Amino acid sequence: MNELTILISCTDQVGLVTNITRVLATHQFNIIAMREFVDEPNKAFFTRIACTGVFEETDELKEKLLENLPNDAKVNLITKKEKQIVVLVTREYHCLAEILIKNQFKTLGANVMAVIGNYEELRGFTEKLGIPYFYVSHVDKEKSQFEDKIKEIINQFDADYLVLAKFMRILSADFVKDYAGKIVNIHHSFLPAFIGANPYRQAFERGVKIIGATAHFVTNNLDEGPIITQHTTHVDHNFGVKEMVRAGKEIEKKVLLEALELIFEDRVFVNGNKTIVFK
Amino acid sequence: MNELTILISCTDQVGLVTNITRVLATHQFNIIAMREFVDEPNKAFFTRIACTGVFEETDELKEKLLENLPNDAKVNLITKKEKQIVVLVTREYHCLAEILIKNQFKTLGANVMAVIGNYEELRGFTEKLGIPYFYVSHVDKEKSQFEDKIKEIINQFDADYLVLAKFMRILSADFVKDYAGKIVNIHHSFLPAFIGANPYRQAFERGVKIIGATAHFVTNNLDEGPIITQHTTHVDHNFGVKEMVRAGKEIEKKVLLEALELIFEDRVFVNGNKTIVFK
Amino acid sequence: MNELTILISCTDQVGLVTNITRVLATHQFNIIAMREFVDEPNKAFFTRIACTGVFEETDELKEKLLENLPNDAKVNLITKKEKQIVVLVTREYHCLAEILIKNQFKTLGANVMAVIGNYEELRGFTEKLGIPYFYVSHVDKEKSQFEDKIKEIINQFDADYLVLAKFMRILSADFVKDYAGKIVNIHHSFLPAFIGANPYRQAFERGVKIIGATAHFVTNNLDEGPIITQHTTHVDHNFGVKEMVRAGKEIEKKVLLEALELIFEDRVFVNGNKTIVFK
Amino acid sequence: MNELTILISCTDQVGLVTNITRVLATHQFNIIAMREFVDEPNKAFFTRIACTGVFEETDELKEKLLENLPNDAKVNLITKKEKQIVVLVTREYHCLAEILIKNQFKTLGANVMAVIGNYEELRGFTEKLGIPYFYVSHVDKEKSQFEDKIKEIINQFDADYLVLAKFMRILSADFVKDYAGKIVNIHHSFLPAFIGANPYRQAFERGVKIIGATAHFVTNNLDEGPIITQHTTHVDHNFGVKEMVRAGKEIEKKVLLEALELIFEDRVFVNGNKTIVFK
Repeated sequence: MNELTILISCTDQVGLVTNITRVLATHQFNIIAMREFVDEPNKAFFTRIACTGVFEETDELKEKLLENLPNDAKVNLITKKEKQIVVLVTREYHCLAEILIKNQFKTLGANVMAVIGNYEELRGFTEKLGIPYFYVSHVDKEKSQFEDKIKEIINQFDADYLVLAKFMRILSADFVKDYAGKIVNIHHSFLPAFIGANPYRQAFERGVKIIGATAHFVTNNLDEGPIITQHTTHVDHNFGVKEMVRAGKEIEKKVLLEALELIFEDRVFVNGNKTIVFK
Repeated sequence: MNELTILISCTDQVGLVTNITRVLATHQFNIIAMREFVDEPNKAFFTRIACTGVFEETDELKEKLLENLPNDAKVNLITKKEKQIVVLVTREYHCLAEILIKNQFKTLGANVMAVIGNYEELRGFTEKLGIPYFYVSHVDKEKSQFEDKIKEIINQFDADYLVLAKFMRILSADFVKDYAGKIVNIHHSFLPAFIGANPYRQAFERGVKIIGATAHFVTNNLDEGPIITQHTTHVDHNFGVKEMVRAGKEIEKKVLLEALELIFEDRVFVNGNKTIVFK
Repeated sequence: MNELTILISCTDQVGLVTNITRVLATHQFNIIAMREFVDEPNKAFFTRIACTGVFEETDELKEKLLENLPNDAKVNLITKKEKQIVVLVTREYHCLAEILIKNQFKTLGANVMAVIGNYEELRGFTEKLGIPYFYVSHVDKEKSQFEDKIKEIINQFDADYLVLAKFMRILSADFVKDYAGKIVNIHHSFLPAFIGANPYRQAFERGVKIIGATAHFVTNNLDEGPIITQHTTHVDHNFGVKEMVRAGKEIEKKVLLEALELIFEDRVFVNGNKTIVFK
Repeated sequence: MNELTILISCTDQVGLVTNITRVLATHQFNIIAMREFVDEPNKAFFTRIACTGVFEETDELKEKLLENLPNDAKVNLITKKEKQIVVLVTREYHCLAEILIKNQFKTLGANVMAVIGNYEELRGFTEKLGIPYFYVSHVDKEKSQFEDKIKEIINQFDADYLVLAKFMRILSADFVKDYAGKIVNIHHSFLPAFIGANPYRQAFERGVKIIGATAHFVTNNLDEGPIITQHTTHVDHNFGVKEMVRAGKEIEKKVLLEALELIFEDRVFVNGNKTIVFK
């Protein structure tokens, strides 16, 4: 018996669930968990089905599903468990460390193939944990040069996702297009509040009583990509900028790791500029 | 087009979802939202399906579903939106008020038919909001007499649920049996911590940093019924028993109202001494 | 023995606490709880002292304190427990109801003298609970006329605070100046996210995973006044605008009532565009 | 200018704050932040004062403070910032890793001198991060022998605190006495719920909707020591024991690290079987 996760999205119409489950029953697949969502204004259907069955390869099943679904259907059959990722960092350790620790103890749900940094600060720690570290400085380089260097490294690996774990450079539209839907970022504010630079200073100046963080897929529009997870934490008048940054880091790593867990378990669909998350 | 919520539970087996959705498709019902859960250790299957379709009565649909399901299947087709409830209270107002306010402004998802209290304190407020108040004192009565009086009142109404909104008398096994699966209680602690009397004093004595509340269905075993919702809130050394009670009341009403909303939307299954809640 | 709450703010300097507590000790006042905060960048000192002592009037104590403090010191000695408030509403009931219920059962920490609404919807409910309701329509009136009418009513009462409990009209700078530091508003978003109209629609369009609410003092700049309390709650792809509004209302009332409790207990200082909250 | 944190506890009486602050003012110390709490039922006074001043040693100041306080006063003047700790583990990595990462990047507020484990599993990771690892098996040893071995190692270091980071052996009364007030434990449940073994299995069996964790000082009575911090997180019917354990680990490390931060900043007083935490 193998486990299979099936992700399907298509235009909504009557009978989709019947069609899908009939195909699965015909092939003797047993549904363990099923989630579906219809975006009614946009007539879009999404489902995630976890099932078990006996199979050697899934091409025939995929074909059968496509035959029974609208023409625009996307069917994704996922058998391999472990995703491969490359992590990009600048100088802050907290998100990277959380990822590398879980990687080290095999609880990340993914395998970290490499870390790329535009500073050298995090090399020592990364290498201690046995992960290759690539240093690409942005200094004295045009953005396109800088990004070409990074792409060169990334393309040595067959990564499912690029994780920006506090990578503090803005990526170009071209770069983003090359890895569309595969780049996950942690933003150090509760978006859409405090877009742009120095969110904790902005939060301090405004005198907010809550700060937060946002994990999102990266698109062309900075800070505008589909949001995956968000959390907040209370602050008060005793918090200066430094204390907000410290509290913020705890939220940032929590939010990013929660998003990664959902992504690695194939629980996240992108639907326009939003996400559907089948927790 | 009518809306229909379908609740089904039965022994788990391969093909259940297909069988169910095929019957629905045959009858031209369109699934809006579907949730299912399999309790694997107990081989039990649960599903909640919200759908739309054209129908006058649902007997034929129910029959068809039962034909296609295991013998132990329970099928519940729910068309009427509004539940009818009777509320039992003692002297504390906070849960009752929250219920009556939402009832008043038609946002409760249910209709309060009557309030029964073993003290007179809450009569004035209840009647101001136009709800009949029945006083049944427990003083100088045997428990069976007391409960018979209450039952007499309840049975004047065709209530779907009895809500114990800080009703501070323990109900007998006989009483509970008469309304099995229909009695919802709010317990003033985070169960199973602080079972029994004076949970806030217990919490104070123990020096906990969190207090909570629990909404549960009532069964024979006091404080042991299936839990529906729980929440907690932080307390600190500045909280005496009085402050804990005050903070606790906010949590109690939040927890109870959240549970009621879930129940009134038919999102809660009882599964042994646990619940399945399809949020 | 009487209880006294002392609020002091002034330029920070060495020895302030000693000076203050020496005066209190001389007058045989016993400190029950004391909180202090120094805004170091702005060299500003704030303290809240709860104490008990024997006194008939507090003028002499205030004089003695002022003699021992910098010239810019503000000293506020508060003996009466109950604040007087006027509530302004439009059509939404949830915040008003929470206030009136607590007022009814004497747990608000303040006394509601009147409710003013620019619609008639909430009259019935307000009057049922014995509170006078004043209707001032904004229709066919200049803003100044509308506000003059409201002021006329407010000025019949000696209110400590005006509570905007989902009052959906923007108040003029002149109006705000007349009640400077006395107007509390609940804003239906987690400020500074979603400033302006229809925050829940904005939140839905952006696809956020959290919504929130903000209680703040009202100043000239709309949505820019000093924030008192904020809370957030999780939402997901199942939430349309309607569901966000519903969840938002629960947060709004929680946030507003928490802010009011803090204000009524004299725990909130305004410090420029921020607040200091001694919880 | 040096920074000094002053912790004082004694029997409560009128004038304590005046006496203390007068001594500080005489010595030209400037109070930055001050917190005080009176446990009224027990007539106990606690204060934490952060101040700055010019001094070479603090003996004279301490003497002066003691002269002006009740006989039972405990005065603790803390100048050194960094605490020294020894960590005890069994086989679970999550709490240890969080501690060692913060230690590595100098954000723990303490210095990890050694890790002691009753299994070898965590040696590799610990040593990678440059911390000595000592293995003491409990197998084939009497408890006293086992503990003597551990004490021998601990006593090589001058540790301020012993942190039980998922150390799964129960320590004897004798051991606890030797390090009274210095042992911090993370308990994998929301105490007092699920005392004893397998709390996540207990939680699963009971069908709770929330799980939590508790950091506490260790005393003779297992799971009964003064609680420092607690947090909870929501679970639902989809969580089996395994998923509860996974979610629980995230809470455990959050709770433990929060407690350690508070302890290392000298914000925690033990008051009988409770704590006072000046956040």
